[in-house]
Amino acid sequence: KQQLLAETSYVTKALPYRVSNADRSIRKGIMAGSLLDLSHKVQEALSVVGTFSLVLEEDGTIIETEEYFQTLNEDTVLMVLEKGQKWRPASNQGSGYEL
Amino acid sequence: KQQLLAETSYVTKALPYRVSNADRSIRKGIMAGSLLDLSHKVQEALSVVGTFSLVLEEDGTIIETEEYFQTLNEDTVLMVLEKGQKWRPASNQGSGYEL
Repeated sequence: KQQLLAETSYVTKALPYRVSNADRSIRKGIMAGSLLDLSHKVQEALSVVGTFSLVLEEDGTIIETEEYFQTLNEDTVLMVLEKGQKWRPASNQGSGYEL
Repeated sequence: KQQLLAETSYVTKALPYRVSNADRSIRKGIMAGSLLDLSHKVQEALSVVGTFSLVLEEDGTIIETEEYFQTLNEDTVLMVLEKGQKWRPASNQGSGYEL
């Protein structure tokens, strides 16, 4: 019974997110139910080793808490920043919408 | 009964906000239900020591009252100004939208 309870507390509905690397050369679709879950999957999907942060691709907002993560809409675009990497705004060329 | 009443008066729905430091080099997503709550969380998240103000990132408007704070939309971008720091408009390069 205790085990069941413990499992239940971890179950949040998995949603799709899009995660890019720092230079926006790779973007992958990843399903995750929590920030912890996404962090694990990002390491494998984007071959991240060592410490990293997840930030909003649009403005570099750092996502540190599950609480804040849970407010993100599905298909939000996130960016992985590894040590020494910095968020930069997308160039017009990069975003492609203003061409 | 008194306890219940006291708790109720504190319950406001937590909303997501984005808070940056004065030079806009760090921006973090923070959930908060009140200005007081946000102020506490900002100290930890942005390593603020000593007195500080919270202002609107877009134009430097100082947020001093709970009443005014409650009118802000979710994901409003706020800025922490520590003693001696001053709000400055974002450079075009920084925001990236005018390039």
